Order: sequence, then structure tokens, then C-alpha cells
Amino acid sequence: MEHEVLHKLRSAMAAAGHDALVAFSQDNVTYTAGFLVPSHASNRFRRTITVLAGKTFAAQIVVNVEENLAKQRSRFSDIRAYNQFTQDPADLLADALVEAGVGSGRIAIELDYMPAQDYLRLTERLPQATFVPSRELYFDTRMVKTDEEIAVLTEVGRLTDHVMGEVLRDIRPGMTEKSVAQNIGNRMLEGGCDGLKCQVGSGVRSGITNCTPTEKAIETGDVVRIEILGDMKQYRSNVTRTAVVGEPTPEQRDIWGVMIGAREACKSMLRPGTAVADLYRAYVKYLRDRGIEPTLKFLGHGIGQTIHEEPYITDTRSVVLKPNITCTMEPLYMIPGRMGFHVEDMYRITPAGFEAITGTITPNDELIRIGR
Amino acid sequence: MEHEVLHKLRSAMAAAGHDALVAFSQDNVTYTAGFLVPSHASNRFRRTITVLAGKTFAAQIVVNVEENLAKQRSRFSDIRAYNQFTQDPADLLADALVEAGVGSGRIAIELDYMPAQDYLRLTERLPQATFVPSRELYFDTRMVKTDEEIAVLTEVGRLTDHVMGEVLRDIRPGMTEKSVAQNIGNRMLEGGCDGLKCQVGSGVRSGITNCTPTEKAIETGDVVRIEILGDMKQYRSNVTRTAVVGEPTPEQRDIWGVMIGAREACKSMLRPGTAVADLYRAYVKYLRDRGIEPTLKFLGHGIGQTIHEEPYITDTRSVVLKPNITCTMEPLYMIPGRMGFHVEDMYRITPAGFEAITGTITPNDELIRIGR
Repeated sequence: MEHEVLHKLRSAMAAAGHDALVAFSQDNVTYTAGFLVPSHASNRFRRTITVLAGKTFAAQIVVNVEENLAKQRSRFSDIRAYNQFTQDPADLLADALVEAGVGSGRIAIELDYMPAQDYLRLTERLPQATFVPSRELYFDTRMVKTDEEIAVLTEVGRLTDHVMGEVLRDIRPGMTEKSVAQNIGNRMLEGGCDGLKCQVGSGVRSGITNCTPTEKAIETGDVVRIEILGDMKQYRSNVTRTAVVGEPTPEQRDIWGVMIGAREACKSMLRPGTAVADLYRAYVKYLRDRGIEPTLKFLGHGIGQTIHEEPYITDTRSVVLKPNITCTMEPLYMIPGRMGFHVEDMYRITPAGFEAITGTITPNDELIRIGR
Repeated sequence: MEHEVLHKLRSAMAAAGHDALVAFSQDNVTYTAGFLVPSHASNRFRRTITVLAGKTFAAQIVVNVEENLAKQRSRFSDIRAYNQFTQDPADLLADALVEAGVGSGRIAIELDYMPAQDYLRLTERLPQATFVPSRELYFDTRMVKTDEEIAVLTEVGRLTDHVMGEVLRDIRPGMTEKSVAQNIGNRMLEGGCDGLKCQVGSGVRSGITNCTPTEKAIETGDVVRIEILGDMKQYRSNVTRTAVVGEPTPEQRDIWGVMIGAREACKSMLRPGTAVADLYRAYVKYLRDRGIEPTLKFLGHGIGQTIHEEPYITDTRSVVLKPNITCTMEPLYMIPGRMGFHVEDMYRITPAGFEAITGTITPNDELIRIGR
């Protein structure tokens, strides 16, 4: 039996009338083969390519130094290695397509990523073939997660939710943003993450959208905004919390009430059949009706092998929610020079509605009070 | 006055008979513009492109969200921004080339990196233009560093050399490889690095070429191999040391004597006029004459904005050394399942010979004895 992901891709390929589907980019190749080829991430001269064709053909092309690892870890049993200095990976790709019987076929391929040089070589080798973009096919297939993907997203999401709570409890006035970030890093790695990023903004710095942690000390009265982005087995988490050191002011409580109200209104629409554009419009309307202009042009984004993927929850997208789409929602309001408010959790669409992947361990329904 | 790097690239372009020089890859764009566009590193759908044409034309194309940053930090004063969702960066590139008067010219461009889609759009817009690879031109130009580049490489190299000494002094039997890695990370970041990688292998793990640090405890008698790769202002360092916890055995001393002998023999050839292929052959001969078969097929590599760049010191390269080439030499000998030996330093070729960028603060002429 072919792996579920390969089966899904092959079905989508057949449904779109393509004879083959070829991936070149790190995210699409990793999605397809089920593991990251180390060179693919670090050396732009070493290509990794996956090929699905017809009903059964499946092969992965890697640089020779990665052959053994690929044979151990790839979903593909047919691993074809090339010498980086003496062979052209595009030739191996052309050979594979001919062998699969689709050398004159319609090939869906990453035209928005594959190097021009490889394209030129391929058209020279296969003058009868037609090359069409594979972009939407991969977006659409990756959007709906398999049970295996949901298990990893849940694992990294729950770890992040847990670490967020621990880190918030550890904050004391006088600690720097950087020391909070270090605590996050240690706890996430100890918890089993392969890597992470985080943002910590306190006081007026909470009002900066992408706030890299600094040596600024966290003081009583500060709004503190923390975003954690985890990385586990090539899947990502994304959780954001807003807290206040001490007691929130009435203004802070009021703004927060609108953020949480918007989130709850949007949660009530999180189910199969909802158009993401409608979800976004409902969010914008909820905020504007209460005098707040949204800071970002989207409410959230798909999450999987990349932090931001389809569906973006915005009115420029035509996606309709369906079961096993995973996404974040992140109501956010920045008042530059004063403070910022932001809550972000991960959700999975279920047949009946949604399941919260995060937010159950460290909820942020009230502004979190810390440093006491 | 145009920046020295732009002047060098423009001269190389003219000497090769090109009318324009276009970069798409992160390393070549960062080299040209003098700063890293954040989106360029993190989002493959957001292109950054630099264009030099004729005697004076110079422009950088960025996604609109990066326009302000590029205007502040780029060497280019002509910054052209495109909307990621409604505009094609290849159109802005075609417009720029036409405006520069080279729309029918010979355009050196990164065919081995630019997306096929952009190439197709460009050939449609500029059917009279000729597109040729820019790969060698960039390799050759980047190989010889400017004074500004040498200053940064020296700064990050000396920091790495210093941190290596501190970290080796801190090692005690019972510490894990991971705790050593954490010490390296803290000291490199405190010293002003923007990022780093490191490898720590102890005992039999010292014999693994790329040894990611683990929870293994370092024990008396272990060979410990530490490689630090620093990252500062987009330039890299690469220093490796081999140490023994306690007293080295006669076998370990003998092997190390050969490694250092080979390094010294190669140092005596480090000067303008030496072919890297001859340097590599001298290294191989030195080892083989003493019964050791080299583990790697190269002795070292250029270092600059990337860890590995031209010139690779190997017999598949025809480069002849000249002043201000910066490179590493890294005699290395792995005995899988037993132990590994490796010393790596950074060098700059001078008119008279060479200058050691690293190795003066924490030398490794003897096997370093630690843990006492």
C-alpha cells in the first residue's frame, strides 16, 4: 500500500488530468517523501526532487551524499542518486519520466520554484511534454491533514501550550525579554522540539508586530506579548498570549474583551462549509462595530509543515473549510508606541465544527496576570 | 562613488562581455545589496532581485513589505517594490532591463537558481535578450574579499577562536555533549554573533564526521572533537579543535603528529600562485606517505557569506590562490567506531603568503588536554 500522502497526491494529480507530479521545493519534497533531506535545506546546489507518475510510478532523486539516508528514511523505495559534480539532476528526472511512460505527457511541476536551468534541460530532453504549474495542487492537498500529521501537530501544539503557561508563571519584574526567550528555548527543546522561534515584547514593545526579544527589563504595569513557534518532526506550532504584570487597566480590559469576543464569534463559525472570506469579514465587522480597526489583513492561517500556509483566513482567498484543515486564528490589535494585544491558537476543523489544538492548557480568555 | 562590491561586479560583468548582471539567490543578493532582506530567507514566494546594467544602472527589486527596510539598509538607492499578490517581480525586472537600455542585450543571470516561471516571463517580455549563466562570475568575484569583508571575517573568526578556548577549559568529565554545545551557544551569542551551529563528538562519536551533540556524557580518555560555525553580519566562521580528556595515548599522539605535519606542509604553500589542486595533492601525499588515507576529498574551502564557497581546495578545481582569498584548511581523519581527529582554521592569502585569521588564540598544535 502506498503511503496516504502519496495516495492523496496521486488522486489529486489524476483528478486534475496530469500524468505526473514533480516537486522541487523543500516543503513540498519533505511533505511528499516524509522526511527532510539535510542538504536540501542547506545547500542550494544540491537538488532533491520527487516524482509521481501514472498509477504506480514513484521515485525520489537526491544528491549522492544523501543516498543512504534517503534509502533509510524516505517513503520512496526507488531512490536515484546523482553526482553533484558530474551529473545533472534534470537528466535523472527526464529519465524517470520517460521510464514512467509520461515523457510526452502533461507534467505538473513547480515552475514557481524549479531553477530555470533544470527547466531548460527538461524541455530539451522531453520536447513533447507539457509542463504546467503544480502550485495549487500542492496547496490544496497539504491543506487537509492526515491523521499522522494531526498527531504531530497536536503533540507540538500541546507542548507549546504547556510551555507558555510555565514561562508566564516564571516571569518576575526585572527579568529581561531575552531571559524569557531563553526560558522558552530551554523548555521547548527539553520538551522534544527540534527548534523554535519566539517573540517577546513588553511595555511599548508589545505594540511591535514582530518583536524580537531585547535586553529590556519587564516592569510592573507592562503588557507582555509572547509568541512561540515550535518545530517538531518538520511540523510547526504557533501560540500567542498577552499578559499584564500586575493589574490590567480598564482600557486594557475593554480592548481585551473585544479581542476575545471576536475570537468567540469566529469560533462559532469554525466548521465545514464556512468560507474563509466570510470568517475574515465577520472578524473585521466585529472589531469595527466596537471601534477597533484590525491591524492585520488576515485573521489566521493554515499551519502544517510551514507556519503560514493555505488557507489564509482573509477575503482574498476562496477556500471553504472542510474537516482536517488545521489553522490558527489570531485576533491582534497593535497601538504603536503604547501597547499590543494578541491571542493565537491552533484549531482543527472536524465534521461537526472544530477542536482546539491549543488553548486548553494555558487559556487566555482573560488577560493573564503575571509577576505576582 | 559606487560601493566597492558593486564596482567589482560591474567590472567583472564588463570584462565578460555581459550587458547586465542579475542575482536571485539569497547569498548573491545579500552579497550585492549588502544586507539580508528578511523575507528572502523565510518565504520562497517573495523574490528579491538585484540588477546591475551598463556603466551606471543599479536597482533592487523587493516585495512591498520589505520596501522601507531596503530603503534604509540596501547599497542600492533605486529600490523597486512589488505587491506579492497582484504583481509579478519578473515584470519589474523586465522593466528595469528595458529602462537600463539592455532589453536586447546579453544578461548574465542565475539560471541555476531563478524560478523557471520568472525565466519564462522574462523571455516573453524580452524576446531579443540573451540569457547566460552568472554562476562563475559570482563565484570568482566573491572569492576575493574586500577589506570590509575581511574585517567582519576577522571579527567573527577571533571571537570563535576565543570561545573555543573558554569552552575547552570549562569541560569536565561527566558533562554532556549537549551542555558543551549550550556553553558554546551562550558564549558565541554573548560575544556578538547573530547565530551559530556547532558539533560536539566525544569518545567513539568523535569519529562521526557531522556529529550533532547528544546527551552522551564526556568521560576520561575520550577524544573530543568540537566544530564551531559562527554567523555575524552575514559572514561565517569555522574553527575545529580536537582534545583528549586526560592524557593522549601514543597512537593518538602519532596520528595527531601527522595531521599537524600535513597542516604545516600545506601552510608553507599558502601564497599567491599556488594552485588549489596542487595544495590538495600535497596534503594527500603527506598523509599517504605516512599510511593515512584522507577521509574527505578536499582539504578546505573558501569562507565568506557561506560556510562552503569557492575555492574548494581539491583537485577538481582549477583556482590559483591570490591575495585576499579567505579559506579554511581542515586536515581530518575519522576512524569510524573508534575516534576522530580534525583541526580547522581560517586563513587569508596575503601578497607575501598568508595570515592566520584563527588559531592564534586557541592553537591546536598539540592535542589539547582538557578536564583536569
